[in-house]
Amino acid sequence: MSDFVQTRHEPPTSLDRPREIVVVCSPLRSNVNLSRIVRTVTCCGITRLIACGNPKIDSEIARDGLDTLDFQVRRSLAPVLDKLRGDGFRLVGLEQTTGSVSIHRYEFDRRTALVVGNERSGIDPDVLAKLDDVVEIPVWGLPHAYNVATATSMALYEYCRQFPRG
Amino acid sequence: MSDFVQTRHEPPTSLDRPREIVVVCSPLRSNVNLSRIVRTVTCCGITRLIACGNPKIDSEIARDGLDTLDFQVRRSLAPVLDKLRGDGFRLVGLEQTTGSVSIHRYEFDRRTALVVGNERSGIDPDVLAKLDDVVEIPVWGLPHAYNVATATSMALYEYCRQFPRG
Repeated sequence: MSDFVQTRHEPPTSLDRPREIVVVCSPLRSNVNLSRIVRTVTCCGITRLIACGNPKIDSEIARDGLDTLDFQVRRSLAPVLDKLRGDGFRLVGLEQTTGSVSIHRYEFDRRTALVVGNERSGIDPDVLAKLDDVVEIPVWGLPHAYNVATATSMALYEYCRQFPRG
Repeated sequence: MSDFVQTRHEPPTSLDRPREIVVVCSPLRSNVNLSRIVRTVTCCGITRLIACGNPKIDSEIARDGLDTLDFQVRRSLAPVLDKLRGDGFRLVGLEQTTGSVSIHRYEFDRRTALVVGNERSGIDPDVLAKLDDVVEIPVWGLPHAYNVATATSMALYEYCRQFPRG
């Protein structure tokens, strides 16, 4: 008899307080990537995501967490970031830039706006100019870049590791 | 002028020694998920992946890291795991089970075989019975389960965080 028996439908981990992180997506090429990000975001207990452009969420991919999400769409990110800064959020980009720090050494602010870039062009320079910090996830091999939804999931994993109770 | 200027085509981080982790996939429903796992695996500098069933890698998703990967396909996992144990690997499942530990508190062995389950049915009982440890990634919200490629990426992120130089 194995020590390990599946318990797949356990209740989720509880939070002591609502999560304060907001995920902010640049216009993405792929609604599949955005929908995958939605699924990870809601699994992490995050309740707020701001997207740009003309996104369509595929509910087959995003699943039923979408109903729990405050999902907003804005024309451009610059005014969104100004507002978030005014609301006390630290603006953190996920990108490889000059001045970026490894996410392995980065201590997140609880109140963080995590800014994600486009699959090809990354985070636009006018958005980068508004950020407080840029974190990057180390890459060790080809194709030398994580998929955007994968990188976002890794960053959210790290944030949640630092704030397991919210 | 922004402090942050994109450096997207930097060389990857180097390893002091080859990665010893092997990713072992149960038969998956979706070749898209497997192909996404391949992309993350090669980005992490991991050189060995064993899959089961009748998988087809989509090179548009997996990208050019596939050429760097020792990708093996086996009929069933049980003999694979016996062999890996004989070769000194710690057999670690990614699943929610009785006796599983939160990945936040788990110290990976450098020489780990990370076993991933099917999207719907998870890791089969006969495979669970062979594992040394099972780690689970906390979930805080709906749909109460990460996508399999997302969960694998988070687990590989954690492994690489613990062994940033290989």
